[in-house]
Amino acid sequence: MSAFEQLSARCVDLISRAELEAKLKENRPLRIKYGADPSAPDLHLGHVVGLNKLREFQDAGHTVVFIIGSFTAMIGDPSGRSQTRKPLSHDQVMQNAETYKKQVFRILDPEKTEVRFNSEWLAPMDFSEVVRLAANVTVAQMLAREDFSKRYSENAPISLVEFLYPLIQAYDSVMVKADVELGGTDQLFNLLLGRELQKEFGQPPQVVMTLPLLEGLDGVQKMSKSLGNYIGVTDAARDMFGKIMSISDELMWRYYSLVLCLSDAEVARQKELHPRKAKDELAKRVVARFHGAAAAGEASAEFARVFSQSELPNDIPEFAIAEAELGIVALLVKCQLAASNGEAKRLVEQGAVRIEDQRISDPRANVAVRPGMVVRAGKRGFARISG
Amino acid sequence: MSAFEQLSARCVDLISRAELEAKLKENRPLRIKYGADPSAPDLHLGHVVGLNKLREFQDAGHTVVFIIGSFTAMIGDPSGRSQTRKPLSHDQVMQNAETYKKQVFRILDPEKTEVRFNSEWLAPMDFSEVVRLAANVTVAQMLAREDFSKRYSENAPISLVEFLYPLIQAYDSVMVKADVELGGTDQLFNLLLGRELQKEFGQPPQVVMTLPLLEGLDGVQKMSKSLGNYIGVTDAARDMFGKIMSISDELMWRYYSLVLCLSDAEVARQKELHPRKAKDELAKRVVARFHGAAAAGEASAEFARVFSQSELPNDIPEFAIAEAELGIVALLVKCQLAASNGEAKRLVEQGAVRIEDQRISDPRANVAVRPGMVVRAGKRGFARISG
Repeated sequence: MSAFEQLSARCVDLISRAELEAKLKENRPLRIKYGADPSAPDLHLGHVVGLNKLREFQDAGHTVVFIIGSFTAMIGDPSGRSQTRKPLSHDQVMQNAETYKKQVFRILDPEKTEVRFNSEWLAPMDFSEVVRLAANVTVAQMLAREDFSKRYSENAPISLVEFLYPLIQAYDSVMVKADVELGGTDQLFNLLLGRELQKEFGQPPQVVMTLPLLEGLDGVQKMSKSLGNYIGVTDAARDMFGKIMSISDELMWRYYSLVLCLSDAEVARQKELHPRKAKDELAKRVVARFHGAAAAGEASAEFARVFSQSELPNDIPEFAIAEAELGIVALLVKCQLAASNGEAKRLVEQGAVRIEDQRISDPRANVAVRPGMVVRAGKRGFARISG
Repeated sequence: MSAFEQLSARCVDLISRAELEAKLKENRPLRIKYGADPSAPDLHLGHVVGLNKLREFQDAGHTVVFIIGSFTAMIGDPSGRSQTRKPLSHDQVMQNAETYKKQVFRILDPEKTEVRFNSEWLAPMDFSEVVRLAANVTVAQMLAREDFSKRYSENAPISLVEFLYPLIQAYDSVMVKADVELGGTDQLFNLLLGRELQKEFGQPPQVVMTLPLLEGLDGVQKMSKSLGNYIGVTDAARDMFGKIMSISDELMWRYYSLVLCLSDAEVARQKELHPRKAKDELAKRVVARFHGAAAAGEASAEFARVFSQSELPNDIPEFAIAEAELGIVALLVKCQLAASNGEAKRLVEQGAVRIEDQRISDPRANVAVRPGMVVRAGKRGFARISG
């Protein structure tokens, strides 16, 4: 595979192919820009899609310019529309940046990463410099951005400040002299604006490369912390494993490609496995990446155990219980899961009793009786409350 | 006439009448804001319309806050669209401001005028403060301005910086705590934005008052220096007089009202005069205002003399001349304006000879002969070249 093929794999937009090929032939470390929002410093697998690509650039000898959007983070969203964009203090930004770096360097090579805070060049700018900067773009150019044009046509308010933010991001490209900027497909407009602004400032325009947005656990929405459908790179091995096992089969192939960087041919080979097995392997490989092979093996075994435990037999005996609430010992006896109160008490104390998935370990516990509820005692004892 | 009636006379927009009435009842000097562009410091009668109104406010005890737009003048138009908005140096702005003040104080009372440079509060603002300011307005709000919406719908570019300028003007209102802002009808949007911004900053909104735009000499376009259709307040008495005599009869009544502040009843009385007489009186009164009654009288007399000279009799004898070009002496003889070459030469040397309106004083001059051309010798001699 050529360097160009390797580096352009998986990308959605590439503007332009010819420019990237030409830049790669210059035989110098290119400057690959990537922006991070320090207001949400916890990385998840959605970020990993981009970081993987950045790492590929580093492995090919290029430099990643990792921009912490400290300037905008400290302003927040002054129009007050966005709940998630509260202004951060300088200390919070620095703290989040440290968190970010620690997580990012699980994937990136620190030796080939230049971390920059955009406050460096934005904070000292005065009003007249802002005016001169704003002179480089037109209102129509900004309104061409899909979400802006949609909101404008729907009479939903767009604060003027929202026109300044893409301009800021574009100006960052000028200041770090980016050769390439990488982002999700939702960043296409902002990345292209960087190209335009670089031209205005007499710089060669950056190559724009977008990568797909990874769907979250639901398989529909983009993975994001605020939607709660994410797998964090610092999630415990067991949680990470379980979350991956919960995704749909269809989504699994996306994760193979975007998180593990498997080629289409490699993904095709995985598709020949039983889906359950393929997903177990995906989960093990992802967990291994962040927690090591040993932790991945343990997580897999643990998951298998819990999973087999949680499987219910097809024919569970049903029992009608008149009481709305009942002591656990009495309940076990009524459901014929224990021959006596003494045996019932012992089972509870041994930790062998569960109502649905919840373990009951106190023999004095009272249980709210609900129709359809499954009571378990040990590996083989099942009873269902009839409803 | 009540104070309210006096102060609201001649205005086009008044937002709102109730607010102005309430403010006038507060019995304190109101702060009447008026903005000036120091890139064109020569005042003309178009400015006088607003200054007259400001003076009326001063005579009623109020304070004029005269804002020199030094901040924007020093930036100019960085989008490079406007030729007339070149950036000025600090020294130029200061020099222009002095020129402005000298001219303005021919109408305003310096004791009741507070002159402010908006660089005072705008120059120290940093990017984050600009972002917070921009958060107060929406894109739709800006695009509602008539010229913006027109250009946007016609796909004519609007630089983003053009959205910042009205915001700057509006912010000036916040900073000087304006009670009233005065401007031409073309300023309505910007003045209203000042109201909105003051509300965002927790201030009572300024009353917005617009005055008609005075048409220039052509009677159609707004008087402006760049269109060359203006009467400058520093024009020489004779020029000022002549320019006013050149306007249409219809326009004369506008000038009576807007430049001399005559009431409708007073204008109606002037309409009973012969138009020539009414215009002479208008011109005398305007010139007297800026140059005194004596200069006005002289200008009127001088104009009458030149005017009567330039009037042609109804029956001018015609002469066919074969030559395309001819010496002035020969021409005078051929047209029977001189009995001999010697008389013709003497007439030329006395300065009595004119071709159309141009005096010929060199007897050796050659004249290009054109059909319809009028040749004059002294007060009574006329000849027309037949065509």
